[in-house]
Amino acid sequence: MKALIYKGPRQVEVLEVPDAKIERPTDVLVKITTTNICGSDLHMYEGRTDVETGKILGHENLGVVIEIGNAVDRIKVGDRVCLPFNISCGFCKNCERGLTGFCLTVNPGTAGGAYGFAGMGPYSGGQAELLRVPYGDVNCLKLPPDSEDKENDYVMLSDVFPTGYHATELAGVKSGDSVVIYGAGPVGLMAAYSAQLKGASKVMVVDTHKDRLALAEKIGAIAIDDGEGNAVAQILELTKGQGADRGCECVGYQCCNQHNIEVPNLTMNNLVNSVAATGTLGVVGVFIPKDPGAEDKLAKQGQIAFDFGKFWMKGQKMATGQANVKAYNRKLRDLITADLAKPSFIISHELPLIQAPEAYKHFDARDQGWTKVVLKP
Amino acid sequence: MKALIYKGPRQVEVLEVPDAKIERPTDVLVKITTTNICGSDLHMYEGRTDVETGKILGHENLGVVIEIGNAVDRIKVGDRVCLPFNISCGFCKNCERGLTGFCLTVNPGTAGGAYGFAGMGPYSGGQAELLRVPYGDVNCLKLPPDSEDKENDYVMLSDVFPTGYHATELAGVKSGDSVVIYGAGPVGLMAAYSAQLKGASKVMVVDTHKDRLALAEKIGAIAIDDGEGNAVAQILELTKGQGADRGCECVGYQCCNQHNIEVPNLTMNNLVNSVAATGTLGVVGVFIPKDPGAEDKLAKQGQIAFDFGKFWMKGQKMATGQANVKAYNRKLRDLITADLAKPSFIISHELPLIQAPEAYKHFDARDQGWTKVVLKP
Amino acid sequence: MKALIYKGPRQVEVLEVPDAKIERPTDVLVKITTTNICGSDLHMYEGRTDVETGKILGHENLGVVIEIGNAVDRIKVGDRVCLPFNISCGFCKNCERGLTGFCLTVNPGTAGGAYGFAGMGPYSGGQAELLRVPYGDVNCLKLPPDSEDKENDYVMLSDVFPTGYHATELAGVKSGDSVVIYGAGPVGLMAAYSAQLKGASKVMVVDTHKDRLALAEKIGAIAIDDGEGNAVAQILELTKGQGADRGCECVGYQCCNQHNIEVPNLTMNNLVNSVAATGTLGVVGVFIPKDPGAEDKLAKQGQIAFDFGKFWMKGQKMATGQANVKAYNRKLRDLITADLAKPSFIISHELPLIQAPEAYKHFDARDQGWTKVVLKP
Amino acid sequence: MKALIYKGPRQVEVLEVPDAKIERPTDVLVKITTTNICGSDLHMYEGRTDVETGKILGHENLGVVIEIGNAVDRIKVGDRVCLPFNISCGFCKNCERGLTGFCLTVNPGTAGGAYGFAGMGPYSGGQAELLRVPYGDVNCLKLPPDSEDKENDYVMLSDVFPTGYHATELAGVKSGDSVVIYGAGPVGLMAAYSAQLKGASKVMVVDTHKDRLALAEKIGAIAIDDGEGNAVAQILELTKGQGADRGCECVGYQCCNQHNIEVPNLTMNNLVNSVAATGTLGVVGVFIPKDPGAEDKLAKQGQIAFDFGKFWMKGQKMATGQANVKAYNRKLRDLITADLAKPSFIISHELPLIQAPEAYKHFDARDQGWTKVVLKP
Repeated sequence: MKALIYKGPRQVEVLEVPDAKIERPTDVLVKITTTNICGSDLHMYEGRTDVETGKILGHENLGVVIEIGNAVDRIKVGDRVCLPFNISCGFCKNCERGLTGFCLTVNPGTAGGAYGFAGMGPYSGGQAELLRVPYGDVNCLKLPPDSEDKENDYVMLSDVFPTGYHATELAGVKSGDSVVIYGAGPVGLMAAYSAQLKGASKVMVVDTHKDRLALAEKIGAIAIDDGEGNAVAQILELTKGQGADRGCECVGYQCCNQHNIEVPNLTMNNLVNSVAATGTLGVVGVFIPKDPGAEDKLAKQGQIAFDFGKFWMKGQKMATGQANVKAYNRKLRDLITADLAKPSFIISHELPLIQAPEAYKHFDARDQGWTKVVLKP
Repeated sequence: MKALIYKGPRQVEVLEVPDAKIERPTDVLVKITTTNICGSDLHMYEGRTDVETGKILGHENLGVVIEIGNAVDRIKVGDRVCLPFNISCGFCKNCERGLTGFCLTVNPGTAGGAYGFAGMGPYSGGQAELLRVPYGDVNCLKLPPDSEDKENDYVMLSDVFPTGYHATELAGVKSGDSVVIYGAGPVGLMAAYSAQLKGASKVMVVDTHKDRLALAEKIGAIAIDDGEGNAVAQILELTKGQGADRGCECVGYQCCNQHNIEVPNLTMNNLVNSVAATGTLGVVGVFIPKDPGAEDKLAKQGQIAFDFGKFWMKGQKMATGQANVKAYNRKLRDLITADLAKPSFIISHELPLIQAPEAYKHFDARDQGWTKVVLKP
Repeated sequence: MKALIYKGPRQVEVLEVPDAKIERPTDVLVKITTTNICGSDLHMYEGRTDVETGKILGHENLGVVIEIGNAVDRIKVGDRVCLPFNISCGFCKNCERGLTGFCLTVNPGTAGGAYGFAGMGPYSGGQAELLRVPYGDVNCLKLPPDSEDKENDYVMLSDVFPTGYHATELAGVKSGDSVVIYGAGPVGLMAAYSAQLKGASKVMVVDTHKDRLALAEKIGAIAIDDGEGNAVAQILELTKGQGADRGCECVGYQCCNQHNIEVPNLTMNNLVNSVAATGTLGVVGVFIPKDPGAEDKLAKQGQIAFDFGKFWMKGQKMATGQANVKAYNRKLRDLITADLAKPSFIISHELPLIQAPEAYKHFDARDQGWTKVVLKP
Repeated sequence: MKALIYKGPRQVEVLEVPDAKIERPTDVLVKITTTNICGSDLHMYEGRTDVETGKILGHENLGVVIEIGNAVDRIKVGDRVCLPFNISCGFCKNCERGLTGFCLTVNPGTAGGAYGFAGMGPYSGGQAELLRVPYGDVNCLKLPPDSEDKENDYVMLSDVFPTGYHATELAGVKSGDSVVIYGAGPVGLMAAYSAQLKGASKVMVVDTHKDRLALAEKIGAIAIDDGEGNAVAQILELTKGQGADRGCECVGYQCCNQHNIEVPNLTMNNLVNSVAATGTLGVVGVFIPKDPGAEDKLAKQGQIAFDFGKFWMKGQKMATGQANVKAYNRKLRDLITADLAKPSFIISHELPLIQAPEAYKHFDARDQGWTKVVLKP
């Protein structure tokens, strides 16, 4: 089969590799029809992780089931399914509480596994023609009959839509709340979209990229251009000096200031200052325990200089981590089916798999207009 | 009336001052019968705050109502009452949601007010013969007939017992959980005690002071002596390498390592490492936005070098801030009344008000055996 | 002042009565500019309660503050305010937990007080020129500068909008849920509207009145006409046989079947059958402990023949009772201010106070098109 | 193998039957070492269900794994395991939210399956030498090395301990609450025990059987003898007229009054009257949709004459249904391991399997002292 292979920093190639196949009786084999490039793929692409050469990337996957193991009960050949990026067993201490992003089984020694990702277990990604899905009954979301027409919407259920929604859940967004979101990339836009779905009264999205801010405005959010580094002041003005009720971090450890310099504590400290006392912060932007490639001394050790005193005096709460996709994907699917959500609005490019290397290059450069790429193997 | 007055760093005196009195129709006047010295009083005592000279200190107060304003409905002269350390209005946006520690009315410009405290509004403290209680109907907890006998238990409802309980609420402690608590001072001990009340299966308390660890063991907790700086390793061993389900920080910004050197990020980073993935941290130890007296450069600006990458990868949650005492004091009172809680076990010294300056000196020096002082004006 | 007075079953008159005035230092006096007739006013109007003759009715009130007691701190003369229908003290055991609909202070012996209502304390209603508001700092919601223009929206914050929202909160409605609502009266419509605000994926509203069902459709809900008594079957068909995720009861004890006969257990048993196993029911329709005027033998004693076996086997949950208006009115106000909610869509008639008796007559008869009446004193 | 077989009303026999065996790759085969008789077994024993003749009964099971299917990953031969009475798949809509008592897979057409139980699927029970456990990775709770010594404690994790705990969770019991529990049978006692574990300030247990009330007192609860039918009055007196904060129903549809006459609405209506306004009711006693054998006309159709008016006016909440055992069994196991819980105190008789028929007879007759029987196959 054809698959996109990581060959080294900023080097990816589409190559012919052995077909993915059923390995365990609980496996399901999926023919991929849509697979996305995610912002977190860029961490690997840039060589800022320890991902091994030869790995097939891709954790935002959708396709058709073409074979099932003999212990699979729920999923049938022919089912059209979307796969949560995190792989889970369904029976460990964390999975049984719904914390499927922190499965203790699939990646022993770590809490959490994923397809085609650094440090997330030996699983191949789905930027390929075929994908082996472990624990198929657990890890496949069945899609309804209209799924072919809306495939570009449903594929967002693999990661960015639930991850954006997760940000708003971690932040405790409820109807009527004012919400500030740092980052207008795909996840930030999905967080804004989710806050609106929940009935937020004011959704403010901060970024410095004008094309992304334009998308935020298009869905009815208030775009906050941080080009002069005064986002906090703008938000305080919009909230009568009190700060927003809730805040989301959708950027992560490579956050940059208005001069495009990495300032690892920028978004978190701005978030503390942008959110009111007793407010809650949901942090889904990726932060990592070690970042040897960073300039910043603290960042090398996975630390940030955090405004802990302000955070504490304000009595704020913070929740973090990757989304437990299965906690949200059924309900978000139903919203797409009912035409009440259309997350494909973030897509800028739809390309064949073979063009993936080129897409990586543009997306990594944050070239104007490259918001989100979907690949069709 | 006699009152303990702050005169400057490490200088407090009991002096004759004008009587406290009713100033607003919603006020209540209380004759103080018991008032404690709190660990947070030491921040002021040591000159590490901007508290003004002449302030009456004391925010852990209990007494008898001797006069009420003409708009007071619930509280009557003769009622024996315990006063939450935080003063609240009962009607602002935060109070109406139960967040009485972050009242927006009583200390305009800040969320939260308190008796006799730096930055917490113009309110005199209760280390005195009389105390003016604003919004008396809101701020008085009525005590039952047996209250005189158990006055040393009930007075703990003003702060340390609810604050320790708050730590366990912020951390989400439930029956069967394993819990690690950093700090075996009065608040840490109350957090351990609260975790036990809730049915925790394993309560581990970390400190370096052997007298305090002995108290932790006395109530049935596992004492973790961090004298060699290996508390995290000990906790991981006790939890099969996974870390505790929940963690509490009950020390604050002046946390010290085993050599008694202030290391502001010590407890928070240890906490992240001691708690399992998906675990929750409750932080009630005080951290402050600016600490010009600190040695550490980050600490001066209220920052800590926080292990944010590990925290995020573990998908942990954190909640912080002073306790909303009114959220807990009724229920904890009922446990004392039912003889199911006896928080006075932390008391080491019971002294007349006149001896308060001496008590401050010993308590500040963390002299062996000076765990908790109650004063009787 | 002029006020609408209850004179006996189906007899109300607008009469000249002594002016409302400040009675306690915590009172606020409001000049009423808009006041609604509520479906629950009809219980009194029809003589199905023990309300005393001479009572001024009206608990959905909005106006301008013209005088304040000397203990009032937050509210100022000139403030435009909306008054929650339930009166609360802000300091009792229930109020301090946000359960202001069950205040233990304002109506001793009962949990809960209200303006102009049977069994809800000695408080006059607001279908009048002036209204005395007890505990003014607690019971006034301040409105923004645009409030005159949107007065017909903001007045809905006194009762029906928060009550409809409460139904969805009691039912635990979250984004993506399917929801069934029994009753397309003002409260049922507000529940449907609230479910949509929260991002429900499917909102189904059951009634037999075609004009009300048309309004439900107008806001995008699925209208279920129970004219043939087969609402449950229709809902099961719309939910693949499983039932809705959540259900709301917005009718109450006088619920009628398709032949307009009171069948007191009709909506509750239908609700149990319309909602899936593990689903949650929110019941805001009024049920009363004694109803001597009822035909049904059980109903006379406030009982219904409830399908408890089915309810239990399904593991359903149910939450009931009047709305704690203060728990929601700030956030819903912000949605109106942001033009994201426009609850005035339920209004069918806007009349001067003097025409209130006529309005009562039509509304009580459920005359075609009389959905909701607002009065302008 | 030997197994206890249902032969018809009040007829059970221990017979030789074909060995249980692995049928699916996800199955686990367990050699049973302890299995209990449950109060709900008596519903079948008495012929009040439609259970089929020939069924092996027994849903409270513990034993040693002797064989595993080839798709089983977590469980190993030799593991000592306790089996939740409800069987779940781990991947359906309900299981993935932790609602394993309402699995949609294992008993198609119904939400929930169990071993050896009427209407709960084709699964044999464990009052036998061997038990087939479907979805073994999901349905086995591993026990620690000390499990043989404490086997009579750990076996309670299969049902009664989690079910009693579930009652307190459904009722929302928190530290300091007062709690009333109807029923001092094994489940009621476990509910009382759980309320104490959580730090309830007052636990009141209502029954008419003096031997059971004595057990309640033995664990420190307040025994309320309803022999004169005045339980509600006693509880109101113990709670200053307000009622308890929380209430649990642990009896079910065969509840009897003090004259031993079945009065199906007795416990539920007493519960409404015993619990305060805004209180919460947790109902784990079994109620069934149809009971043709009942005397009462409503009961035949699974209805009760419920005090809905009082329930509503009090704004109470109610949650019901069988326990999701997996939601609690790990944490409760840890409490047993830590010697902080010892649920075996309810055991009155320990007998070989062969004596099961005799035990059924005595237990069904509620013979003095037959509280709980454990069988050793």
